[in-house]
Amino acid sequence: MAKKIRLGILGGGGDSLIGILHRVASQINDNYEIVGAVFNPNYEESIAFAKEIDIPTNRIYKDFDTLVEEELKLPKEERIQVCSILTPNFLHFPMAKKLLDNGFHVICEKPMTTTYEEAKILQAAQEKTNTIFAITHTYTGYPMVRQMREMIKAGAIGKVHKVDVRYYQGWINSIIHDKEKRSTVWRLDPKKAGISSCMADIGVHAFNMVEFTTGLRIKSILADFNYLYDDNQMDVDGTVLIRMDSHVKGVVRASQVATGEENGLAIAIYGDKGGLRWEQENPNYLQVQSDTEPLQIFKPGHAYNSELSLDGTKLPPGHPEGIFDAMANIYKGVARAIRGQEYNDGEFPTMLDAVRGMDFIESTVESNKKGNVWVELD
Amino acid sequence: MAKKIRLGILGGGGDSLIGILHRVASQINDNYEIVGAVFNPNYEESIAFAKEIDIPTNRIYKDFDTLVEEELKLPKEERIQVCSILTPNFLHFPMAKKLLDNGFHVICEKPMTTTYEEAKILQAAQEKTNTIFAITHTYTGYPMVRQMREMIKAGAIGKVHKVDVRYYQGWINSIIHDKEKRSTVWRLDPKKAGISSCMADIGVHAFNMVEFTTGLRIKSILADFNYLYDDNQMDVDGTVLIRMDSHVKGVVRASQVATGEENGLAIAIYGDKGGLRWEQENPNYLQVQSDTEPLQIFKPGHAYNSELSLDGTKLPPGHPEGIFDAMANIYKGVARAIRGQEYNDGEFPTMLDAVRGMDFIESTVESNKKGNVWVELD
Amino acid sequence: MAKKIRLGILGGGGDSLIGILHRVASQINDNYEIVGAVFNPNYEESIAFAKEIDIPTNRIYKDFDTLVEEELKLPKEERIQVCSILTPNFLHFPMAKKLLDNGFHVICEKPMTTTYEEAKILQAAQEKTNTIFAITHTYTGYPMVRQMREMIKAGAIGKVHKVDVRYYQGWINSIIHDKEKRSTVWRLDPKKAGISSCMADIGVHAFNMVEFTTGLRIKSILADFNYLYDDNQMDVDGTVLIRMDSHVKGVVRASQVATGEENGLAIAIYGDKGGLRWEQENPNYLQVQSDTEPLQIFKPGHAYNSELSLDGTKLPPGHPEGIFDAMANIYKGVARAIRGQEYNDGEFPTMLDAVRGMDFIESTVESNKKGNVWVELD
Amino acid sequence: MAKKIRLGILGGGGDSLIGILHRVASQINDNYEIVGAVFNPNYEESIAFAKEIDIPTNRIYKDFDTLVEEELKLPKEERIQVCSILTPNFLHFPMAKKLLDNGFHVICEKPMTTTYEEAKILQAAQEKTNTIFAITHTYTGYPMVRQMREMIKAGAIGKVHKVDVRYYQGWINSIIHDKEKRSTVWRLDPKKAGISSCMADIGVHAFNMVEFTTGLRIKSILADFNYLYDDNQMDVDGTVLIRMDSHVKGVVRASQVATGEENGLAIAIYGDKGGLRWEQENPNYLQVQSDTEPLQIFKPGHAYNSELSLDGTKLPPGHPEGIFDAMANIYKGVARAIRGQEYNDGEFPTMLDAVRGMDFIESTVESNKKGNVWVELD
Repeated sequence: MAKKIRLGILGGGGDSLIGILHRVASQINDNYEIVGAVFNPNYEESIAFAKEIDIPTNRIYKDFDTLVEEELKLPKEERIQVCSILTPNFLHFPMAKKLLDNGFHVICEKPMTTTYEEAKILQAAQEKTNTIFAITHTYTGYPMVRQMREMIKAGAIGKVHKVDVRYYQGWINSIIHDKEKRSTVWRLDPKKAGISSCMADIGVHAFNMVEFTTGLRIKSILADFNYLYDDNQMDVDGTVLIRMDSHVKGVVRASQVATGEENGLAIAIYGDKGGLRWEQENPNYLQVQSDTEPLQIFKPGHAYNSELSLDGTKLPPGHPEGIFDAMANIYKGVARAIRGQEYNDGEFPTMLDAVRGMDFIESTVESNKKGNVWVELD
Repeated sequence: MAKKIRLGILGGGGDSLIGILHRVASQINDNYEIVGAVFNPNYEESIAFAKEIDIPTNRIYKDFDTLVEEELKLPKEERIQVCSILTPNFLHFPMAKKLLDNGFHVICEKPMTTTYEEAKILQAAQEKTNTIFAITHTYTGYPMVRQMREMIKAGAIGKVHKVDVRYYQGWINSIIHDKEKRSTVWRLDPKKAGISSCMADIGVHAFNMVEFTTGLRIKSILADFNYLYDDNQMDVDGTVLIRMDSHVKGVVRASQVATGEENGLAIAIYGDKGGLRWEQENPNYLQVQSDTEPLQIFKPGHAYNSELSLDGTKLPPGHPEGIFDAMANIYKGVARAIRGQEYNDGEFPTMLDAVRGMDFIESTVESNKKGNVWVELD
Repeated sequence: MAKKIRLGILGGGGDSLIGILHRVASQINDNYEIVGAVFNPNYEESIAFAKEIDIPTNRIYKDFDTLVEEELKLPKEERIQVCSILTPNFLHFPMAKKLLDNGFHVICEKPMTTTYEEAKILQAAQEKTNTIFAITHTYTGYPMVRQMREMIKAGAIGKVHKVDVRYYQGWINSIIHDKEKRSTVWRLDPKKAGISSCMADIGVHAFNMVEFTTGLRIKSILADFNYLYDDNQMDVDGTVLIRMDSHVKGVVRASQVATGEENGLAIAIYGDKGGLRWEQENPNYLQVQSDTEPLQIFKPGHAYNSELSLDGTKLPPGHPEGIFDAMANIYKGVARAIRGQEYNDGEFPTMLDAVRGMDFIESTVESNKKGNVWVELD
Repeated sequence: MAKKIRLGILGGGGDSLIGILHRVASQINDNYEIVGAVFNPNYEESIAFAKEIDIPTNRIYKDFDTLVEEELKLPKEERIQVCSILTPNFLHFPMAKKLLDNGFHVICEKPMTTTYEEAKILQAAQEKTNTIFAITHTYTGYPMVRQMREMIKAGAIGKVHKVDVRYYQGWINSIIHDKEKRSTVWRLDPKKAGISSCMADIGVHAFNMVEFTTGLRIKSILADFNYLYDDNQMDVDGTVLIRMDSHVKGVVRASQVATGEENGLAIAIYGDKGGLRWEQENPNYLQVQSDTEPLQIFKPGHAYNSELSLDGTKLPPGHPEGIFDAMANIYKGVARAIRGQEYNDGEFPTMLDAVRGMDFIESTVESNKKGNVWVELD
């Protein structure tokens, strides 16, 4: 009998998108229960947020060190098993280190650390305590990304010889073209944000996508970064030539100034027998291509997919996963109504919609039965 | 301070898709807590399922009547506030009736009832107790469907004069073309399934979409149903001519034998100033068209959208809602690892992925700094 | 040795789109030579146009009757063999009749006649003289439409059971919503334009597409037309329920007020083994779908296509036929330059472009050879 | 009064695709007449081909030198004005040189020469004789490519800061992975094909597209080529980092081993106010994007386009240029019928199609008039 896993949350309070994402993700498969947290450096805000989302406040701690200390006092069968680290980047390393050293499992937002040196220290720490550690390269969770990996492993496109991956966004334009903003934002200050903006934030996802899907290791790289103004030289754009095994090359492209691009992660992989193409913004379509056969589009949930892909699909074909959210929006409207809060017409379909639907169904049956004649609805 | 709403669930146990959908949807905005349920007609399975998803079993009831009876004994501040009805269709009416009569709010799967007569009875019941009732026309929860409604209301396409909506699926082919199956499946037996298959199951969603988005009422219809074999005359396909206000006409098309279609709900609305097109399988793209201006594509999360649309979006532009699920898949893999269950390589990104990512970032910075030269990764 | 076929043209002078279309189409496969014409009811304009497009003027006739009379005096091996009728609709019938009666072959713009009665008269005339007659349902010339026909004939989607075809345009909006215009335009005056606007102009193409691709005959129809203003009751929109063989139904939808639609002809055909979908605005993509297999996209020019489809493709895969026109635009710019006419920078790629291209190629080779270093272009 | 320009053709006989392309392109706007040619090194085949396409044979010459010599003897008003060079690459330079030196205009297939040195010689020759020279970067003739250029020139996307262009094909896979073929094909033999395969064949188109659309000059490049087998080191794939003006960078990607890609030329251009994206395989869609406004799709033929773009469009919106070819296919079928050659049912729409169309139109009018009842077709 599967008891829910006891989850702790570090960061992610308030309207934090990343907080919502981790809470929802942890609930979707009925596997986790949030039992402890430091949602916010401000203890009172942390408590307030716990109340807002209706989580018991007795294990909301005033800071990270207290959380570790107090949880370690609890019997093992009550203690937090795994912590999700959603804090600013520079805190990832010290938090993860302490958690791993004390036997907690960790789910860590990306980038794991601010240097490669720290990364290797964490690796050693994990090996010592034999804990579970996950880094949130979220895109590897898409069913069709998993399908790419399994198809390549199974030889569907033969020997890979070329990889082309892109991660283009445009959001930093509004900052970089404003002299005032670009000199004050912490994200573009190397002292606060680390050695790289574009490559560390999104280029690394593209890198991971290559290794995840192809199963190959990138052995060497040649990078060309770009910045747009001399008074701020953080990379906001870059192209990286990559080499894997012999005669296997590729290119990783990343940009935060690709104007009008939203979250444009896309990958194309070519082998001697076929090619694969996938785009994050339309994640349910995997293009399987050949030089001689008709183009194929694989979609999630079909029996023709691999086990790993099917394990990541809960819905039948044709239902984008966003339907969970569409239904959630209806539940949200109902919640407002039940709580007597203000809500707009259209937030959920009402009794009237249901009644009219039944009128429609019966009228169509009647029209058809009478020989396709006009029937009036009430 | 928002206390979670106490939710009861009727049906939806085990692997039921509709059960998963409602549980996830109820959790996504931190609004609901499942406090009572009859997941399954078999009490023991109901209890087992509650344990499986780690819900306290003390308010898992042996049947629906017991649930109502026992809950009514509880003080109002502990009692189930709203019940989601996910049972077979013929149970919707009696359950909803009793719930509404006793002051429970209801979220009801579609179709609400099996006849229009019953629908009107429920409507009267709801009016009497002034309860909240929602019918799950889930598609109205999509941000871009809401955007259509608000744009039309605001006059963006002028006076609507034509509506064309389609809901095409192909799943019933595997049943209808098999003589044995089509004569035994309950869904195609009018005694068990009601007066209509295709129109009641999906045509009614198309109907609702017209009224939801345009704000117009369909006044009269002319229907032509199709069946493929004389030995089973349930409609598996149908076209319905519709008339709204004067000179406003349209067509509703529905099919369960549109081979290769998955969940092909699509709507096109034309007014004297513009047109709108949307498809459920790519729900993040709303096509806004004009005879003279460039085609526009509206996408969720942008400030240019209406309030009702934005209220239904949690993610920044370019992130399909399916990313919740992608992350959930990673959490699922981690859960298996923590529980010591078997899992496959690739179910979540590991320490090694994180370490290599840091190596990549540092190497690209080095390559760029040295004048775009080749740098080897470890 | 194929001598070019002697072609006569009736109508299509000046900037007439239909004139350009037929002239280009007749030249593309080196099969025809224009030897005679009445381009315009005004003889002088006809002559002027012949000069403009550099066709010998000795067989430009003052009117249609003269053309027939004079051509008949010529020896058979010089005489016009086939005439293209591009005149206003009401002239199609008398011209075609006289041509067929006198043994000329005919390529006729659609609609062939203004009434069904006339159509049957022409049919009898053709049978009598055993001439060749073609009606310009141009869309049947697309390679992927031909492919649909051949695939269905070969059983690729099994027994057809449902057809859905749409032809939506929006161009009449600018007329119909203007009280002045809608009462004066000849196209919406039944005395001049015939009994139907939308159905005769475009609905009939949709009808033809059904019969062409499926090989089935439509046996009965039920139509619902729409008009938007009481002061003009010509159909600008309509839906037609169709029935072919037993249990084979469908729907034909046509509109001239589908705001923002350009030339939206699309067809979906469903059989018990598969489905096919095609859209005129992206004519190189044929969607071949199944309930259980990955979606396939067939494209022109591949060896997997049928003979009839391949016969209609001159270009290798990936080259849209529009490339003929792209090249023609370059030839047009060159013509202007040669003639000393004014032209804009960008109308054709120049020597400078060619020189820079060679510089680029050599520089890349050098950069690569030197170990991927920066090389400057001149 | 525009007299047709006298065109000579070098190469392009028989089934040569490039021959068809140039012949059609020269005819589309009624500007050119083919008056002389050397279609083939074999004189008899050249004559035979001229007869096949029904061109007078008196100016079909036995070789290029004879063509020049004989044409120069003709009076200037009869002489070939412009020659299209469609021969193998190594002949481009000597032919173009001699033509330019003798005052002929030239339309030359790409690559213009085999070395940059030769290119500069041609440039000097052209300057001396002040002749017209066009190189066939055909893609610049597409209306939406022209539109990109004009929009950028007009400041629609602000200051360009990033360009990304791709030209991916997969056709060389069938050669490169076959040891026998890759060692014998002339295209992969540097002695015959020149210094580069991929970059010279298609990379240069991508390069040209950047300069054509942005109006910027590429100042320096860094290239990384790939080959797949040590026994053949011609580039079949390559990535080129490019730098234009200060802080304006980009990447040019080209491949002949991008398995399953057909003719995948695509460009994305990002400026500080907007972005543009276009793909050759869907040339009628120009994506105009912004960080804050809805995505726009520009299409050809609309009044909102620039003059240069509109000059390249003959058809109304929604008609892909391929419709010329669809109509040409119908003309081809008619030609076969007139010549008494064998042809298949479906090659052109017949009298029967026309008659049935009229039956359909009248029946729909009748059905509508009678109140939407079923009417049978004959």
